[in-house]
Amino acid sequence: MKRPWQGQVEPPLLKTVPRHDPHNPLCPGATRANGEVNPYYDGTFLFDNDFPALQPDAPSPGPSDHPLFQAEAARGVCKVMCFHPWSDVTLPLMSVPEIRTVVDAWASVTEELGAQYPWVQIFENKGAMMGCSNPHPHCQVWASSFLPDIAQREERSQRAYQSQHGEPLLMEYGHQELLRRERLVLTSEHWLVLVPFWAVWPFQTLLLPRRHVRRLPELTPAERDDLASIMKKLLTKYDNLFETSFPYSMGWHGAPTGSEAGANWDHWQLHAHYYPPLLRSATIRKFMVGYEMLAQAQRDLTPEQAAERLRMLPEVHYCLGQK
Amino acid sequence: MKRPWQGQVEPPLLKTVPRHDPHNPLCPGATRANGEVNPYYDGTFLFDNDFPALQPDAPSPGPSDHPLFQAEAARGVCKVMCFHPWSDVTLPLMSVPEIRTVVDAWASVTEELGAQYPWVQIFENKGAMMGCSNPHPHCQVWASSFLPDIAQREERSQRAYQSQHGEPLLMEYGHQELLRRERLVLTSEHWLVLVPFWAVWPFQTLLLPRRHVRRLPELTPAERDDLASIMKKLLTKYDNLFETSFPYSMGWHGAPTGSEAGANWDHWQLHAHYYPPLLRSATIRKFMVGYEMLAQAQRDLTPEQAAERLRMLPEVHYCLGQK
Ligand SMILES: O=P(O)(O)O[C@H]1O[C@H](CO)[C@@H](O)[C@H](O)[C@H]1O
Ligand SMILES: O=P(O)(O)O[C@H]1O[C@H](CO)[C@@H](O)[C@H](O)[C@H]1O
Repeated sequence: MKRPWQGQVEPPLLKTVPRHDPHNPLCPGATRANGEVNPYYDGTFLFDNDFPALQPDAPSPGPSDHPLFQAEAARGVCKVMCFHPWSDVTLPLMSVPEIRTVVDAWASVTEELGAQYPWVQIFENKGAMMGCSNPHPHCQVWASSFLPDIAQREERSQRAYQSQHGEPLLMEYGHQELLRRERLVLTSEHWLVLVPFWAVWPFQTLLLPRRHVRRLPELTPAERDDLASIMKKLLTKYDNLFETSFPYSMGWHGAPTGSEAGANWDHWQLHAHYYPPLLRSATIRKFMVGYEMLAQAQRDLTPEQAAERLRMLPEVHYCLGQK
Repeated sequence: MKRPWQGQVEPPLLKTVPRHDPHNPLCPGATRANGEVNPYYDGTFLFDNDFPALQPDAPSPGPSDHPLFQAEAARGVCKVMCFHPWSDVTLPLMSVPEIRTVVDAWASVTEELGAQYPWVQIFENKGAMMGCSNPHPHCQVWASSFLPDIAQREERSQRAYQSQHGEPLLMEYGHQELLRRERLVLTSEHWLVLVPFWAVWPFQTLLLPRRHVRRLPELTPAERDDLASIMKKLLTKYDNLFETSFPYSMGWHGAPTGSEAGANWDHWQLHAHYYPPLLRSATIRKFMVGYEMLAQAQRDLTPEQAAERLRMLPEVHYCLGQK
């Protein structure tokens, strides 16, 4: 952190976005690339991605002739979910009841796509710095015919821990962090937010329910309200950190779904990961390059330092606080 | 690749860099952060990083009280290696004999630091987009008291393949790619460059010796000359792809060193990885975000398409070609 920085400075973030732009394919009433017209939705709005990376009928690559050249079809669907009819809001600027409708929509889409697919990945890329190509508040949902790499790794670790220690890894982990306190950012009746012991991004956080919950649809109404409220607090702190609309990628991980949903997945605990790129200011990011790409992640500040900085920040958004 | 792009466009690359800037700590004769004055070097120049991420005497974290909270000291040294006395050149603009001196310097530093440390990671972050904070042509060398994560993964895979198939994984892999040809970019008497079957970055490549070579210092003079020449060709193609000074992170992986260097590492094959971020143009990059961070890498073009595009490009640099 002491190195002088003469490197890349990101372009300044978001100029003001118009509340409604009839040419933005995510807005109510807009026409999308496939010619469909969006309804005048007033809560969340889920539709098929017009440029899907996964398709339900992807062809099989055929048998392989060599152990080093193995390929398999990746089948699935890609959806987009708008959080709000307005383009000029973000989750931390939405009300708790509005965020609650997003939580409900996440639970429903998990249920709907999870009936067929073993993995339903909900993720949000927020901000141009995170490759987001549209400022309208939205996330994506990609459901796949296979467990993606990271899901497989979480499956292996959680299964091994449960069989060795007789309890879910993330239940014990959350419990320990509550005792140790040094990496906690926020706690509420039903949820914890902490900078994980293994964090690689400077202000990475983990959002965990206190109760053993395997998937989003299992959340009770009280847990959903409380989730909306703690998310608003976390994202407000993030925005307040550098007084900017804080970029990140986030996503939910829960027990696999699909035809095996009925198997024993008790070693799984639902959680969300937040991976924000900023390090020093609103325009200077952490670059995961060089040593990180070729050898191993290394941190510029400790998880405890990051947690402390986030803990100290106000829970009132810098855009809303001052008069 | 068909998605309309309204997302982030990178700031235009390098304005002209002065050949010599007395305030640039990488230049000959400049004073560095620690007060040392650089010699008037005229080939390569190796010195200790003034802001090292690894230190030889890092303290031990002490014993852990819980299986989920395990930490170990990471000890090592960080060096910087300038490739050339001028700030306004890059490897593809240097002559083959000049690049050969870089190859020799890589071999020597591997030998020198490898006498003590089990892993010597040579890597180059090129371009502001890859977090490089100084335009002077240089790489870094971080030697560590442990095998970093990615080294461990390569160790496991290569060892398992050798024990199952009786030959080094990357020897058989290179052999297969030579037969299949569709992912080859360049071949020479002693080297291959290809877009690997498993590539995740759009124009990622793998540079492999044809002979079984475990570490850089084992390269013969003829192999070193040929390496300098094929690197110049590859990096010229990269620059020509979008007519820009092509950003990337690259690094060398070879068999572990240190006190265990004498063990049997025959399953290892020396290689270099190139990870360039650009996707569509000199200013539009691939964002490894969202689905990639939370689930699995997914490609925007196939390795075969990427290899074909690179193969077709001229081996004369766009800045040197035209009159
Ligand atoms: O060492 P530098 O050039 O200051 O820093 C660069 O390389 C390091 C090692 O790959 C990374 O950790 C930094 O994020 C990057 O900006
Ligand atoms: O789907 P989008 O917003 O066009 O694209 C964004 O998210 C995708 C999924 O994380 C990434 O693969 C792209 O690199 C990124 O730009």
